[in-house]
Amino acid sequence: MNIIDGGVTAAKGFQAASCEAGIKYRDRTDMAFVFSKDPCVCAGTFTSNVVKAACVQWDQRIVSSGEPMHAVVINSGIANACTGKEGFDACRATAKAVEEALKVPYSSVAVASTGVIGMQLPVEKLVAGVKKMSQSLDAGMEAGTAASKAIMTTDTVNKEVAVTFDIGGHTVTLGGMSKGSGMIHPNMCTMLAFLTTDLDIEKSLLQKAVSEVVRDSFNMITVDGDTSTNDTLLIMANKNAQNPPIKEENSDFEVFKEALAYVCTYLAKKMAADGEGASKLFEAKVVNAKTKDDARTLSRAIVGSNLSKAAIFGCDANFGRFLCAMGYSGAQFDQEDVELFFESENGRLKVFDKGTPIVFDEDEALRIMKADAVTVFVDMHEGSEEATAWGCDLTYDYVKINADYRS
Amino acid sequence: MNIIDGGVTAAKGFQAASCEAGIKYRDRTDMAFVFSKDPCVCAGTFTSNVVKAACVQWDQRIVSSGEPMHAVVINSGIANACTGKEGFDACRATAKAVEEALKVPYSSVAVASTGVIGMQLPVEKLVAGVKKMSQSLDAGMEAGTAASKAIMTTDTVNKEVAVTFDIGGHTVTLGGMSKGSGMIHPNMCTMLAFLTTDLDIEKSLLQKAVSEVVRDSFNMITVDGDTSTNDTLLIMANKNAQNPPIKEENSDFEVFKEALAYVCTYLAKKMAADGEGASKLFEAKVVNAKTKDDARTLSRAIVGSNLSKAAIFGCDANFGRFLCAMGYSGAQFDQEDVELFFESENGRLKVFDKGTPIVFDEDEALRIMKADAVTVFVDMHEGSEEATAWGCDLTYDYVKINADYRS
Repeated sequence: MNIIDGGVTAAKGFQAASCEAGIKYRDRTDMAFVFSKDPCVCAGTFTSNVVKAACVQWDQRIVSSGEPMHAVVINSGIANACTGKEGFDACRATAKAVEEALKVPYSSVAVASTGVIGMQLPVEKLVAGVKKMSQSLDAGMEAGTAASKAIMTTDTVNKEVAVTFDIGGHTVTLGGMSKGSGMIHPNMCTMLAFLTTDLDIEKSLLQKAVSEVVRDSFNMITVDGDTSTNDTLLIMANKNAQNPPIKEENSDFEVFKEALAYVCTYLAKKMAADGEGASKLFEAKVVNAKTKDDARTLSRAIVGSNLSKAAIFGCDANFGRFLCAMGYSGAQFDQEDVELFFESENGRLKVFDKGTPIVFDEDEALRIMKADAVTVFVDMHEGSEEATAWGCDLTYDYVKINADYRS
Repeated sequence: MNIIDGGVTAAKGFQAASCEAGIKYRDRTDMAFVFSKDPCVCAGTFTSNVVKAACVQWDQRIVSSGEPMHAVVINSGIANACTGKEGFDACRATAKAVEEALKVPYSSVAVASTGVIGMQLPVEKLVAGVKKMSQSLDAGMEAGTAASKAIMTTDTVNKEVAVTFDIGGHTVTLGGMSKGSGMIHPNMCTMLAFLTTDLDIEKSLLQKAVSEVVRDSFNMITVDGDTSTNDTLLIMANKNAQNPPIKEENSDFEVFKEALAYVCTYLAKKMAADGEGASKLFEAKVVNAKTKDDARTLSRAIVGSNLSKAAIFGCDANFGRFLCAMGYSGAQFDQEDVELFFESENGRLKVFDKGTPIVFDEDEALRIMKADAVTVFVDMHEGSEEATAWGCDLTYDYVKINADYRS
C-alpha cells in the first residue's frame, strides 16, 4: 500500500466540483459535488440517531436499493434535519437537478448536509449550485481539495487522504474526504465521509468491508458525546482500475480492507484532533481486556469523559478521573488488576499499579502531558483483547463555539 | 407536610459537629460528624461505578449487615478512591476512633469522602479530627449547617433542608444535607447526601422508600456525565418521634415517602443548579411518553448533552440539539409526534411542532432563555408517562474548574 497525495478525485474516473451557493455562509464555498460518469457500486453506514436527517433517509434508500450510484451532492451550513416533508422535497429537487444537468437517474444521486438542525434549505440556491458545479467538474487534485474545504463547518483543517494498492497486477486507488468537529460521538459515524475508489468489487463485500472497518475507526472517536442526526459514510466503487473483480473474502479482499482501514483511521484521527476547540489529540489505548467489546467500551469511556478531557486540557495527571470513567463505562473489571500509564512523544509514566496509586514526579508528568498528542495507556491484565479510541481535550473554545453556534 | 429551617440536626436525637482537620484544604472546615446516641435503622444507595471508593464499600457492608448505625464521619478534599488496602485501613481507623471516643461499636460508624481520587488520606489527621468533633457534638441548627459546609468541595452554596409531617398524631422530622457539584451523572446518586429522621420504621421499608424516591430525584440530575466513585446516600432513623412504627406500606408509609421525595428533590435540584461553573438551572420535562423509562431516558439525555448545555449557556434557542440528544438517547420515537417548547418565568414558546420547525421570534426566545432556570418541555404524544431531569449549563468556568482541579 502506498500513501499518495489527493482525496476524492484520486481514483480514476471521479470528478469533483464546489461552489459558493450562499446557503448560510457568505464569502466561502458551501456546496461540493463528487461524480463518476461510470456507474458505481456503493455502500454506506449512517447515524444510529433515531432522529435522522432527511438526506440520511434519502441515502439509505439508495444504498439499500442495490441500484448504481453516480454522484453525491453535499452542502454545509444547514443540516436538513428535523425539517419534515419540506426537507425531503429539498433532497429530491437536488437529485433532480443533477439528473437534468448530467443525464443520470436522480435515484443514483446521494445528498448530504451538515450544519444547523431545524432550519429549511433554500431549494433554489441548491439547484443553482448543482447547475454551476455540473459545468466545472474536474478530475484534478485541486478540485478534490476544494470540495473537501466546501463541506467544512467548524472544522479548522480540511481532511483528505488517498492510497494505492495492488489487486491482481492492477493498481487500485482509494481516496476520501471527511468533515467533522462537533456533535461527534462513536455510533457510526459521527461525521460526513465520502470515499471513492476505482476498485471492482461486489456490493455485498464492499458493504461488509466498510461495516467492519468503521467499528475500529470512525466509531472509536468522540468529541462531545453527541451523536449527530446526519452522520454518513458513503463509498463509491466504479471498476475503472479493471482489476479482477473481488467476489469473495480472499486475499485481495484483505488487501482492500487494510487500505480502507488506513484511510478511515487517518480521517477519524484527523477529526478527533480537530474537535471543536481542541488543543490536542487525546488517545486511550486499552490492552489485555477480557473481550474486544470491553476494550472498546473502556477506551471510549476514557476519551469521552468531560472530566478526563478537562484534565488533558490542563495537563493535569489526575489519573483517578480516567479510572472513574472506566468504572462507569459498563465494562466489568477489578481495579486490583489495572495498570495505568501516561504516554506521549515526551515519555511514559506509570501512575497506577494494580489497585494502588504510585507517587510520581509531577514535573515529569507535566512534560509528558504538554505534548500535542497524549495517550492514556491501560493494561487490564484480564485477557488479550485491545482497542484504541481517539478524542480531544475540553477547552474554553469548545464552550465558546457552541454557546452561540447559530449566529 | 411543613418545610422548616434546618438540616441533619433537625430531627430529635441527632447531633452534628465539624472541624478543620487540615486533610487537604487550609483555613476551612473539612470534616463533619453526624451522631445519634440512640441506635438507628439505616438504609442507603451507592454509586453504580465499578470503581468504588473504599468508604463506599465500607458503608455498603454496614447497610447490608442489618446492624444499627450510630454515626457517619465525612471528610472533603480526598475521595479515598483507588487507594487499595491503605484506603480500607483509613476507614477502619476512623470508625475505631469514634468507638473509642463515644463508646459505640466501630461497625455502627459509616464513613464518606469526597475530593481527589487516587490520593491517600492522612489517617492521623482523621483520627485527631474525630476526637475533636466528639467533644463538640451539638443538636443545634448551627451545628448542622456547619457540618453541611464542611463537606463542600467545588460547591458554591451549602445544601440542607428539613420537613415535618404527622404520623399517628406524632410530629416526625426529616432533615438532610448534601454536597455535589462536579462528577455528577444520574446513576445513584452522583453525590453525598445524609438524611436523618426520628421516624420509627422497619429497615426494609426505609430502604424501599429510599430506593424508589432516588429514582426520580437524585438519579435525574446530571452535571457532566461522570458517575463518581463515591456517590453515597445514607438515611438514619432513630425512632425518637415515638410514632406508631411503620411496618407495612400503608398510608403512613406514603406520607413519609412524600416527605422523603420533597427532601431528595430539593437537594437534587440544588445540586444541579450548583453544578461546576453553572450559571443556571436547566430542566427537561418530558410528558406523554410511551413508558416511564422512556420519559426518564429522554429527559436525562436532553440535560446531559454538552451541545444542549452550551446552547443554554449562550441563551441560544437551538432546539435541534435537544431533538438530536433525544434521538441518540436510546428511546424509540417518531419525530413526527413531537412538540417542543422553551419555558421559563419569562414565558413559553413552541419551537417544533410534530416534525416541523416553527419560525419563532428570536427576541422572545432570548427573553425566555435569559432566566435563571430554563425548561425544555417536550410532549411526545405517544403515551401518558412523564419525567423531569435537572442539570445546568456548560460554561467557561466548568472548564476552568476542571482543567486543574488538583492544584
